[in-house]
Amino acid sequence: MTDRRLIAVEPSSRPEMHAALTDAVQAAGGTVVPPEDARALIFADPGAAEVFPAILAAGPHIEWVQLPYAGIDGFGNHLDDTHLWTCGKGVYAEPVAEWIMAALLAAFRSLPHYARATRWPEQFGQNLLGARLTVLGAGGITESFLRLIAPWNCQVTVVRRQDQPVRGADRVVTLDRLSEAVADADAVIVALSLTDATRGIINRTTLAAMPSHAWLCNVGRGGHVVTDDLVDALTTGAIAGAVLDVTDPEPLPDGHPLWGLDNCLITPHVGNTPAMGLPLLARRVADNTRRWIAGEDLIGTINVHAGY
Amino acid sequence: MTDRRLIAVEPSSRPEMHAALTDAVQAAGGTVVPPEDARALIFADPGAAEVFPAILAAGPHIEWVQLPYAGIDGFGNHLDDTHLWTCGKGVYAEPVAEWIMAALLAAFRSLPHYARATRWPEQFGQNLLGARLTVLGAGGITESFLRLIAPWNCQVTVVRRQDQPVRGADRVVTLDRLSEAVADADAVIVALSLTDATRGIINRTTLAAMPSHAWLCNVGRGGHVVTDDLVDALTTGAIAGAVLDVTDPEPLPDGHPLWGLDNCLITPHVGNTPAMGLPLLARRVADNTRRWIAGEDLIGTINVHAGY
Repeated sequence: MTDRRLIAVEPSSRPEMHAALTDAVQAAGGTVVPPEDARALIFADPGAAEVFPAILAAGPHIEWVQLPYAGIDGFGNHLDDTHLWTCGKGVYAEPVAEWIMAALLAAFRSLPHYARATRWPEQFGQNLLGARLTVLGAGGITESFLRLIAPWNCQVTVVRRQDQPVRGADRVVTLDRLSEAVADADAVIVALSLTDATRGIINRTTLAAMPSHAWLCNVGRGGHVVTDDLVDALTTGAIAGAVLDVTDPEPLPDGHPLWGLDNCLITPHVGNTPAMGLPLLARRVADNTRRWIAGEDLIGTINVHAGY
Repeated sequence: MTDRRLIAVEPSSRPEMHAALTDAVQAAGGTVVPPEDARALIFADPGAAEVFPAILAAGPHIEWVQLPYAGIDGFGNHLDDTHLWTCGKGVYAEPVAEWIMAALLAAFRSLPHYARATRWPEQFGQNLLGARLTVLGAGGITESFLRLIAPWNCQVTVVRRQDQPVRGADRVVTLDRLSEAVADADAVIVALSLTDATRGIINRTTLAAMPSHAWLCNVGRGGHVVTDDLVDALTTGAIAGAVLDVTDPEPLPDGHPLWGLDNCLITPHVGNTPAMGLPLLARRVADNTRRWIAGEDLIGTINVHAGY
């Protein structure tokens, strides 16, 4: 068996990420080698899933694969039972939780409306302080969000698969009771990973269950929302508005109806930007490299069968 | 002497405010009477300072005057040593502190830019998490703001007149060292009351002392900023941008250069809106009425000579 310190960082198609992750591996005591010689692979380009199978096949000794994203989009078909898989789960939680706060405050304080004004506008706005919020998902993003929202004295409901308590949440509701969980919400926040069970979860039924004054904030994946249903809800006033960091399709094409809606704010998948995320990912890779060499448990392991 | 419970609520030119404050006085055990019979006056229209002298003159037994705003703008010339004066100081602190959070997150996360986009934009944005912030003023707004920002792990400098520590701030700098206090700030927040000592405090000199990547957030009064100097700084890139809830002149006239600047977001004096603020003011009036009747100290007393 080759040395556990021998680690591949591939591909090099994103030079800045490749350099940062190479530095991280070396700083943690690893030696960067080609896949042929490696015991582990740090995959260094989230947009190059198509070259992943060839790189993995080139490394017969690879046991651990670190994927670069919080989710495993694009890599799901490549997962297997013969490798240990980790992803960037939790790495991006803090910036993404910050995006949720920005989205909620922008929505409640009417900032999109004001940003588009070219003369002194009428006064709008409501407080986030004390609001009722329903968060879908109980992962790292929600955990970080609950930390940031704590001083606001909001009433927070978390919707998750399992009926288990969540620290900092006032109420936990299981996914099968989603309509009930959103019925009294001032805002509904989607912070789920995308699986077959959560795809399209924000649809005509869910939107109809929300109060007409409620906002939707989606920082999960575009596929969580049935876009046509959302356009209907925003157009008819079924809900007050939406702030979307992810869309379906993504990028949202020119001329799409969402671009023309006053009550919709779209941000271009910047829950974390590369500039925010790369240092955080590099820290995770260094941490996991150190753990891997020491034979310790890794952070962010993927449950291959659950798909996240 | 007349009964301390006899309290005037005048004028009635803003019916909703008049009704809410009348209810508050009665709920606290007061009896609402005309100024002629009253021992105290709750002034119920912040926009009607011009009728204030006549109302006060009509009440020879009035000892305590409650003004409706956080500051005393418009009423400064009417203050005297023969009455006890209180204002809404601190009442509006929480919503205004929330506005600061909304402004900072909008600025750092490029939300004005995204709100104006009509097609999928480039990715921008930086984290508020861990940022360096300089806050001018150490009153109730700053106190509330420090509570809300605490989970962000920012490095916060508070600039104030007296060299006294501020709970939750990492550093306190006195006003005479303002340029030093803003020199390393990612954002500068103005949360001062407007006095002769603070008028125009954000001028060419202060703006030049700020880093070119820094944002200005003004939730104090328009007069704190020399508007022409700000337009220059925003146009030349001396600072990154500004979020203004108050302007000079206010309302900002149509066609003013600030309306045309991409790096400027203007909100129409909504740190607290009437809808947010009236319940809070009513709670303060009820609290002070109860204290007044019981002969206790009142909240939000004005130092007549300091002017705030």
